Amino acid sequence: MEFDLIDAIRARVNIARGDVALGIGDDAALLDVPASRQLVACTDTLVAGVHFPSGTAPEDIGWKSLAVNLSDLAAMGAEPAWALLALTLPDADAQFVERFANGFATLADKHAVALIGGDTTQGPLSITVTTLGFIPVGAVLARDGARAGDSVFVTGTLGDAAGALEWLLDGRCAPAALLARLHRPEPRIAAGLALRGLANACIDVSDGLLADLGHVCAASGVGVELDAGALPLSSALVANFDAGACRQFALAGGDDYELCFTVPPACEARTVEALAAGGCGATRIGRIVAGSDVRVLDANANEIEITHVGWEHFSR
Amino acid sequence: MEFDLIDAIRARVNIARGDVALGIGDDAALLDVPASRQLVACTDTLVAGVHFPSGTAPEDIGWKSLAVNLSDLAAMGAEPAWALLALTLPDADAQFVERFANGFATLADKHAVALIGGDTTQGPLSITVTTLGFIPVGAVLARDGARAGDSVFVTGTLGDAAGALEWLLDGRCAPAALLARLHRPEPRIAAGLALRGLANACIDVSDGLLADLGHVCAASGVGVELDAGALPLSSALVANFDAGACRQFALAGGDDYELCFTVPPACEARTVEALAAGGCGATRIGRIVAGSDVRVLDANANEIEITHVGWEHFSR
Repeated sequence: MEFDLIDAIRARVNIARGDVALGIGDDAALLDVPASRQLVACTDTLVAGVHFPSGTAPEDIGWKSLAVNLSDLAAMGAEPAWALLALTLPDADAQFVERFANGFATLADKHAVALIGGDTTQGPLSITVTTLGFIPVGAVLARDGARAGDSVFVTGTLGDAAGALEWLLDGRCAPAALLARLHRPEPRIAAGLALRGLANACIDVSDGLLADLGHVCAASGVGVELDAGALPLSSALVANFDAGACRQFALAGGDDYELCFTVPPACEARTVEALAAGGCGATRIGRIVAGSDVRVLDANANEIEITHVGWEHFSR
Repeated sequence: MEFDLIDAIRARVNIARGDVALGIGDDAALLDVPASRQLVACTDTLVAGVHFPSGTAPEDIGWKSLAVNLSDLAAMGAEPAWALLALTLPDADAQFVERFANGFATLADKHAVALIGGDTTQGPLSITVTTLGFIPVGAVLARDGARAGDSVFVTGTLGDAAGALEWLLDGRCAPAALLARLHRPEPRIAAGLALRGLANACIDVSDGLLADLGHVCAASGVGVELDAGALPLSSALVANFDAGACRQFALAGGDDYELCFTVPPACEARTVEALAAGGCGATRIGRIVAGSDVRVLDANANEIEITHVGWEHFSR
């Protein structure tokens, strides 16, 4: 009999949603999209040794594989609904699957995401998750709406995951507060919902602030000036690294899964208020300008040279 | 600058659909699901060396990675619309990507499937595709609707891909007609659409007829009796293998991507007609019975013992 891994996962990831007409168990899932909603869809892969260190706990891999996807939905202002999980494993390790599913389920429960389908295959460990969500027609937060004069904000703090990774690559056990940011990123779903109707552009910071903000600028046909002194840093990061390293991690580290967004000055106060109501802090870190340059300025408004601008697949 | 493989793929897979509000290029795609339609979603992974031989042409890998997914949509009676592609590659091999994209695009064009998102990552070669499609509310072809007395049909011919694989595993170049079935399976989209309102249950034959029909029986709470002599075999298969091997491939070979479905006797004639109008032949291969057994009968109605019932992940 087939060792049905997806069944084992389904037993743990068992959110019931009324909009799932047929879930796991047929050739495909059958789903009801609410009227007057648009569908939002994205997919992301994590590969062992590339996106997480080989010794990462299965629970953390499960959590993170869903989190990086939900972060993309958050950046669109979408409400998550459903996920499909393609899990490739070297062997039918039931304990790994159970622990992976526990981590996945913990985050799925938190955001009421139903697992509606999947595939388990044999091969080198990698995980591809596809998530689907909804957004009212016309409410999407896209990348191409930034306008000169907009203020640039970012939620939470930057650089913590990169700081944790630095410890791990040195073969040391990283401080717990930083490690949590690397292994258990919290997708900013509530922040994305709060930003509907307020932000002109939004992106999630996964490849590093400069790289991702560069995508916003390219899509919007604008430039940006960031205030290096304003970058939000956690006390854990500051306690463990010097100022230069902190800045580098915050600007280029990646794996932050914070939202970076632009708002017209007139909306700033309402935006901060709306985010605070959702339990999320945000910091003003710069402004959108005419042109196409992404510049980082020090306290004297002099440009700081940044060499490595973020994670680049196939380039390191 | 990031070597943007997804952009290279997008340049080749460029079906434009009016229901794609935002395609590749933002954090997620934004999509319009037509009113009075349900959404159908599935995901499948192909791993090099597991789901296709290592020397397989990139064009064939591209085609097949989409085909196996569209076959799942076909089995639901869905009309395909959108696909997301997660491509994991050992290195940024632009030529591989171009050839892969050509194969993917050829099939996507044929079924008007828009590529709406994706992810490229570095790692051992594997491809996860997620496809989304539509179906009128209530028209889905599920696995659990088979009833005792239903006739069992299958489209096309069975066992060709398994026959081709046998040649390849022997280190020989397989006959072209068989090889095409292995590398370029044709998802039975038109057949799935034609079966709406006619079939009680439907599944695509990917793991082998007996294994997949077993899923239908388990979901429907019924058994099945198959007529070994009625199994549809291609002339290419018959020309290259003895009768026993042909039967084994047809019953248990897998990778057929034909539709197996059950219809009430009263609908048989209309079903065959509807499929023929869609350019697809179908063969009656048995009947649904009470109980739970999947049995294969010879010309004298004696049961034939089948040992290997199909592809099982992690079990060989």
